[in-house]
Amino acid sequence: MEVALGQVPPDTIIENGVLVDVATRRLVDGIYVSISGGRIAALSKERPKPGSETKVIDAAGAYLAPGLVDAHYHIESSRLSPRRHAQITLPHGTTTLFEGSHEICNPLGLDGVKYLLEEAKGLPQKIFVGLSSATPPTPYETAGAYIGGKEATEGLKLEGVAGIDEVMDYTALFNGEDRLHSVIEAGLASGKVVEGHGVPSPPQADAFLATGVSSTHFSGDGAKALTLLERGCFLELKSRDSRQAIRELVAAGIDWQMVGMCVDDRPAEKISQLGHLDYELRIVIEEGLDPVTAIQLATLNNARHWRKEHEVGIIAPGRHADILFLSDLPSFKVDRVMADGVIVAEKGKLTVDIPIRPAPIYVMNTIKLNQPLAAKDFEVKVSSDKLKVNAAVLRPYYFSADLPPITRELIVENGLVQRDLPKDINKVAIVRRDGGGIGISFWELGYQHGAVAMSVLHDTHNISVVGATDFDMAKAVNRVAEMGGGITVIRDGAIKAEVPLPIAGLMTDRPLPEVVADLDRVNEEAAKLSPGKLLGPNPVDTQTFIFLTCFPWGIVLTDKGLINVRTGQPVQTIW
Amino acid sequence: MEVALGQVPPDTIIENGVLVDVATRRLVDGIYVSISGGRIAALSKERPKPGSETKVIDAAGAYLAPGLVDAHYHIESSRLSPRRHAQITLPHGTTTLFEGSHEICNPLGLDGVKYLLEEAKGLPQKIFVGLSSATPPTPYETAGAYIGGKEATEGLKLEGVAGIDEVMDYTALFNGEDRLHSVIEAGLASGKVVEGHGVPSPPQADAFLATGVSSTHFSGDGAKALTLLERGCFLELKSRDSRQAIRELVAAGIDWQMVGMCVDDRPAEKISQLGHLDYELRIVIEEGLDPVTAIQLATLNNARHWRKEHEVGIIAPGRHADILFLSDLPSFKVDRVMADGVIVAEKGKLTVDIPIRPAPIYVMNTIKLNQPLAAKDFEVKVSSDKLKVNAAVLRPYYFSADLPPITRELIVENGLVQRDLPKDINKVAIVRRDGGGIGISFWELGYQHGAVAMSVLHDTHNISVVGATDFDMAKAVNRVAEMGGGITVIRDGAIKAEVPLPIAGLMTDRPLPEVVADLDRVNEEAAKLSPGKLLGPNPVDTQTFIFLTCFPWGIVLTDKGLINVRTGQPVQTIW
Repeated sequence: MEVALGQVPPDTIIENGVLVDVATRRLVDGIYVSISGGRIAALSKERPKPGSETKVIDAAGAYLAPGLVDAHYHIESSRLSPRRHAQITLPHGTTTLFEGSHEICNPLGLDGVKYLLEEAKGLPQKIFVGLSSATPPTPYETAGAYIGGKEATEGLKLEGVAGIDEVMDYTALFNGEDRLHSVIEAGLASGKVVEGHGVPSPPQADAFLATGVSSTHFSGDGAKALTLLERGCFLELKSRDSRQAIRELVAAGIDWQMVGMCVDDRPAEKISQLGHLDYELRIVIEEGLDPVTAIQLATLNNARHWRKEHEVGIIAPGRHADILFLSDLPSFKVDRVMADGVIVAEKGKLTVDIPIRPAPIYVMNTIKLNQPLAAKDFEVKVSSDKLKVNAAVLRPYYFSADLPPITRELIVENGLVQRDLPKDINKVAIVRRDGGGIGISFWELGYQHGAVAMSVLHDTHNISVVGATDFDMAKAVNRVAEMGGGITVIRDGAIKAEVPLPIAGLMTDRPLPEVVADLDRVNEEAAKLSPGKLLGPNPVDTQTFIFLTCFPWGIVLTDKGLINVRTGQPVQTIW
Repeated sequence: MEVALGQVPPDTIIENGVLVDVATRRLVDGIYVSISGGRIAALSKERPKPGSETKVIDAAGAYLAPGLVDAHYHIESSRLSPRRHAQITLPHGTTTLFEGSHEICNPLGLDGVKYLLEEAKGLPQKIFVGLSSATPPTPYETAGAYIGGKEATEGLKLEGVAGIDEVMDYTALFNGEDRLHSVIEAGLASGKVVEGHGVPSPPQADAFLATGVSSTHFSGDGAKALTLLERGCFLELKSRDSRQAIRELVAAGIDWQMVGMCVDDRPAEKISQLGHLDYELRIVIEEGLDPVTAIQLATLNNARHWRKEHEVGIIAPGRHADILFLSDLPSFKVDRVMADGVIVAEKGKLTVDIPIRPAPIYVMNTIKLNQPLAAKDFEVKVSSDKLKVNAAVLRPYYFSADLPPITRELIVENGLVQRDLPKDINKVAIVRRDGGGIGISFWELGYQHGAVAMSVLHDTHNISVVGATDFDMAKAVNRVAEMGGGITVIRDGAIKAEVPLPIAGLMTDRPLPEVVADLDRVNEEAAKLSPGKLLGPNPVDTQTFIFLTCFPWGIVLTDKGLINVRTGQPVQTIW
């Protein structure tokens, strides 16, 4: 205020910029931006009087756009700690994230939220947390923590918690499950935002929104987008999966105020290759939206939806001084990034030190098997007089495609059901992080050797293991536990590649190049075990997602065995 | 949710309507609206299955628009109690009000808020309260209550309090006054909205917004509007005073998401004549904005600004079933009003009973003079040897026009300064409601007889009295106190006309025609006392506003005498 009134000189003045005014969707020339204490103090037509310490930045005619605001994101999916992650995403212009948090909350509960907020302290990238509504993700599986109405009310009081994130268990929601509805009610009572998930069609879309859910991160076509928008749902476009929708919405000439943008999930190596929210923004522009509206989607619209427009999303008095310098709008190449009034990146390179802090003890060593597992823990027993059984076998992409398991005949030896490796049939197990239970079933995944285990398992983040032998499966799970979490590829008892993820079993604070190299190697080594590549070229990445239990998933494997998550009914594995 | 899913039949179905989709700014045909428990359950393309109790409403091709949401309003200015006020404004389509509350908070503090919320219970018109930031309006005057940071934090916890209303004491704001800044901080900490007032220009505009204020109710031209919008200020247009701005903003082709609408103040008789927010909306359309965007301004945009878009402002699942039926959009004539799922008005007439409840004891008898005043309480004494003095005399519209008082010579008799009635110079006094003090000065207002007193005095709502004789001034103030508040016109000791306003000294719950008749009569009788009509044709209405102390006012009369509210300095009355 005092800087705006001219009573105190600004810390920094930006001159010769063209303001991208996201409030009115205009470009405004000849504006000076005064900054003080990391916040915008004033916009002015006249040059503010600099003090002796004032830094003057010549924008040299660049466009000044607000720092990008991601409406829905999971840092954990990058495998990097929040501060490492900030190092690679700030140069792409992401100065604010609304973080989903159920990845870290499932193992750690509110401690996970505290860790995220602790990491965010003093970080130029603002991290607002949406408290997990999905702990556990469904009532039919076991997470490391439990967040019900009471815990949510407590968590919502934390500074930096901006709402409830992503309501995704449609079965529980529509069954009126007490835990989930209590969490939603806590969110509504707090005056904060309740986020959704998925792209439901009517009448489910209406039912979903009637519960108080306000939004979804969207992939789909224009008709689906309009159906949700006209029902008052804020759409966070995943542009890469919504190209058709963007074209159709542009053609329909809609008002875009209820449309935002998000990245959702992106592994570190993909961020390096593609970019971050800037990449999604370029897609929106490519598909025909004018650049200034596109920038609104990725800044003010997201900030308003999350009720943080007084903090971020616009270059205006009182807000964080998060400013992107762009030489050209349609190509949206971020030349320079200011966050909290400091230039933090130039031409894609970080220009400030973001120190990595030792991770606190409560996020480390979060995997506690009672004792190391042995091969026999993965045995599937039937009565010893049987020679064959039928098994309900899942395939790699069934999880997203409303398909029942296929029935396969499997051989029994000494009362133990065997894999059928020539037919690509492996064993898969979900091992609780506390050693409290294992769910096992058979999947057509194509591994001919070894086993791949990991503590990244959306969304409980128990340990998943896929294997061609019980011995290697036990070895792999034990190795993940030894590392305090991570990913390992075992063949004939030997470690072929691994990525330690000691922070909550999900993240590391090692430098990006090392992590990317490790991630590449686990994918490569896992691919070698699976000549048919049924899990795709990056089998490790695929494995992280195939045990999802949220909408629109159907029959899935949990620590309690096969479950139809649409009905809550267990599904017989063998008969 | 269960109704949306078809598990429970709706209470009501609306068919054959054309949905005004304020999210995307389109008209959508062929939509059925299902309603349950006063809320929208679903929109559907297929006819929902009615139950045996389901009411089906045929919209007969009418447009269905969301109920109007007023972003900034003072019910007290109507002189009617909230429930009486709802009776006359619901037929105009106003189904939600964001109520400023400082009128009632100045005499009553948080009790005033509780009264508003109590009246709103079970009322089809939703009343959200913005807690007063202006109690007292300035540090230089005395209100009946005090709301600082502590009181604000407490008030913000009340269900139905949606933020802090209107920050208007620029002097205190820019001086960093602790009380006002503590109230703003309490608002920001609560996650709710902090509302502004006035149309500041840079650099004051920047300073104002830098404190955390988010909005203003706007009158002015397009350039001023753009200046505020590009600084991130949400504009609540008072259309009647912003016709030029509307034309200019339409011509500029701006995005309207940061623009809303409000009525602010309107006496009951004007509501009857002109309408309510529907009147403002018609003006916006007249000035060239397309009707659907205009409806967005008065519905979704206001609701989003106040962070209540999950409750009101759009016809969508989960929201209150507040729906206007319109045969034509450009003329915006509200044919039928539904609120909370019930038709409450048809063709401008209320069709439901809105019972008037007895006002609670704590809002009654709020004027407590220690003892009746006498003529001598209005004497202005100087040393008895003086024959003449100079006096700082104010004129009727000086309060808004940055003008210093004029100097007039006044005669002294027996040590008492006299009026100069031939030159239209009256005495004016502000009497504290608790009898604790009187501020007196001389004004050029033109009364030749009698006195006019009232307990409606923006914004402290102490008692103001303008008089041609001290005797009538005392009589008038005493009569206002006897009534427990109201307006009275006295001539030669006799009551010529009066309006009792026993609720907080500001409102009545009598029926509109009686109140309008009384208000007309006090204006008429007061006008008869003032042949020159310096206070305009409705001198009583003018008197309510001429003691405002907020921006952009300059030298004003308070209970402590003349004050320059821009500096806080007292101004000498006579010398």
